[in-house]
Amino acid sequence: MRPSIRTKLPGPKSSIIINKIKKLNIAYSNPYPYVHNKKGEGCYFQDVDGNVFIDFASQICSNPLGYNNPEINAVIKKYKQSPIKYGGQDFNVKEHLDLLEELITITPKGLNRAFLVNSGAEAVENCIKLAMRKQKKAKFGISFRGDFHGRTIGALSYTHSKPIQKQNFFSVQNKILPFNETGGENLIKIINKNGASKIAFVLTEVIQGEGGYNIAPEKLVKKIRKITNSYNIPLIVDEVQSGMGRTGKWWAHQHFNISPDLMSSAKALQVGAAVTSKKFNVEPGSISSTWGGGHTLDLAIGLKTIQIIKKHNLLSHVTRLGSYLKKGLNNLNLENVRGKGLMLAFDLKDKNTRNNLVIESLNQGLVILGCGEKSIRIIPPYIISRKEIDKALEIIDTSNKKVNIPGFRHRGKICSYIQCGESHT
Amino acid sequence: MRPSIRTKLPGPKSSIIINKIKKLNIAYSNPYPYVHNKKGEGCYFQDVDGNVFIDFASQICSNPLGYNNPEINAVIKKYKQSPIKYGGQDFNVKEHLDLLEELITITPKGLNRAFLVNSGAEAVENCIKLAMRKQKKAKFGISFRGDFHGRTIGALSYTHSKPIQKQNFFSVQNKILPFNETGGENLIKIINKNGASKIAFVLTEVIQGEGGYNIAPEKLVKKIRKITNSYNIPLIVDEVQSGMGRTGKWWAHQHFNISPDLMSSAKALQVGAAVTSKKFNVEPGSISSTWGGGHTLDLAIGLKTIQIIKKHNLLSHVTRLGSYLKKGLNNLNLENVRGKGLMLAFDLKDKNTRNNLVIESLNQGLVILGCGEKSIRIIPPYIISRKEIDKALEIIDTSNKKVNIPGFRHRGKICSYIQCGESHT
Repeated sequence: MRPSIRTKLPGPKSSIIINKIKKLNIAYSNPYPYVHNKKGEGCYFQDVDGNVFIDFASQICSNPLGYNNPEINAVIKKYKQSPIKYGGQDFNVKEHLDLLEELITITPKGLNRAFLVNSGAEAVENCIKLAMRKQKKAKFGISFRGDFHGRTIGALSYTHSKPIQKQNFFSVQNKILPFNETGGENLIKIINKNGASKIAFVLTEVIQGEGGYNIAPEKLVKKIRKITNSYNIPLIVDEVQSGMGRTGKWWAHQHFNISPDLMSSAKALQVGAAVTSKKFNVEPGSISSTWGGGHTLDLAIGLKTIQIIKKHNLLSHVTRLGSYLKKGLNNLNLENVRGKGLMLAFDLKDKNTRNNLVIESLNQGLVILGCGEKSIRIIPPYIISRKEIDKALEIIDTSNKKVNIPGFRHRGKICSYIQCGESHT
Repeated sequence: MRPSIRTKLPGPKSSIIINKIKKLNIAYSNPYPYVHNKKGEGCYFQDVDGNVFIDFASQICSNPLGYNNPEINAVIKKYKQSPIKYGGQDFNVKEHLDLLEELITITPKGLNRAFLVNSGAEAVENCIKLAMRKQKKAKFGISFRGDFHGRTIGALSYTHSKPIQKQNFFSVQNKILPFNETGGENLIKIINKNGASKIAFVLTEVIQGEGGYNIAPEKLVKKIRKITNSYNIPLIVDEVQSGMGRTGKWWAHQHFNISPDLMSSAKALQVGAAVTSKKFNVEPGSISSTWGGGHTLDLAIGLKTIQIIKKHNLLSHVTRLGSYLKKGLNNLNLENVRGKGLMLAFDLKDKNTRNNLVIESLNQGLVILGCGEKSIRIIPPYIISRKEIDKALEIIDTSNKKVNIPGFRHRGKICSYIQCGESHT
């Protein structure tokens, strides 16, 4: 397949569907101007109007192996019975065990327990609950400026990305650290003022996702780990977006040579997971989830995803191709090219230009995704080839040149699509 | 099929799997003493040891149409491609629209918008967020003693069921009303003291689920609706467990002739949904969910579930068979038989006897589920027949007589299973 845009975007069939969703969806988010059909192969997919795109957004990191991966399709074909969703914490299925066993082969040393739930937000919620239960005297939790941890009230209380995500919503007790090298000193100040036992946890993304693909300074990460270790404060690393091999290591924090006490995973894993060690064990009934550990197909696809990444040495591939892609982006003289593996980003001069770049690339058949104030995420499936990277770089380059011509603006229906960086999490 | 228990419970194959899950699952909940295999038909299912059970627990109301329902299986067979999970708020799929359109054909008049998410907890979280966003001066939300609304911090703040579910966890601002006829007066007192604008919402289950299948007095429900209407306070009804036809009407609150401003659904719907009217519209980016509206198979099964309930007049069937089942339970002289449709319950003399009844019924091939302090839920699939009800009643009767013999106790491995009423939500 190759990118091929045959209609104005959105095409007529997509347009009808999206407009109807807009009317009925109370939280309409200005989606991308196409509707997926089932066709696709590798990094390419087709929309219901027959347009073919190359996907450098990977369903916001949820689709690491591309479209119609034959090994994943083989798993899906095995599921011919209903229900496929069980009350998995109470009514066990074998898929629950299989994923747990496979997952702990790739989790950091010592983190050999997990709790499977329905989403990234629920994974973070359960990490913070496990930490709170352990820190019995705690009065607040701590996270970082720019963090995004999810949309449920617990995870959202520790999210400090965009005001619209929190306006008027209640929050539980939280404090904020700067996401720079002064973060450690600030943490020490909070400890000195309040006492370490008052802190339920420190929660961080080592590469901030929705907030802008900001990479934590190595000194910050190491300092925070050192301090939380000395004071026995649980350190939670949120790997919902950055984990599962996206950076060329299984978990982004492994680039910093630290190990957390608790870790959240989701997206590429197909289910949510709160991962930790047995020292965070809780009494039965403390935390639970009706569907957690019970969606047989999601569990089976999560399992196969890990197995495929191992079998095809995709971590090395991600590292190698990530390096090739990063060099290519740098060659285009883009601003602030950054990232690890296939979790890359660059900046545009402002938000408007960034949004224009997303739209212009779409018109040429490339899907890219905004983040932060004025950044673009570059997150293709792990199976990407050099040839596909070259094609994407070509589209980014021509689009970038076009949107930087003074007075550039889009015309047509596509202008009302894509709320870049506001909604994509 | 018919109930047939061939091994001690758990059987040897189940035992191995459950013990391994126990070791790896940080939130191990003492599950039921069997592991599902894929075989089953109607209200019957088989475990990996070949035991056959009749299911009066319906995956905690998540499986309304039983095992291997041919129309649901036909939907599953259509999904042969990957991914099946999209970033559905940003990258639309047709299944999203199809479910929204079908859902609003069964929602109460005026509630014709929805936001689709991953779980019941997320459905409640989004209802309370939509209410908070509207009530800009609000300082707290209100729910009822005995309520269960989910395990994420927002939903959990308004859950007042079992202490273990909340111990040491932070909560957002909340007040509690008694779940009896004085609830209305108490709400008036809170309004007089604080001002109505300080209240983000009143959140209620009209039939409390996990808390004990307690049915709200009709006077309470009507009074609360009247007061919240007069003072413009959003009323949220949580229908995660009680909705989707379980009580013989689409939504349990329809038995009370009221209509809420927002409503949560999940479980039988296969996805979570926050349902409301367009007056709760929010700006793009305010609420979102990576997978919400994007799990094609769950959306398609949810759609087909509604269609099947309509096509086969299952609401009438649920009412008719529920009435037959309730009469049968009353004939067994069980304590405090209550409920609507196929959402029934009764009490035992104490928690221990209740747990014994669950175990003894399992030994005879009937799956029932605890709730509250000492209650049993009776929630078979909607497709249950009189003959199957007669069989279940027979097992309940013989088990009940047995566990009430002074000095009765269980022996063997089964004793360490089933944390009745602690974990099942």
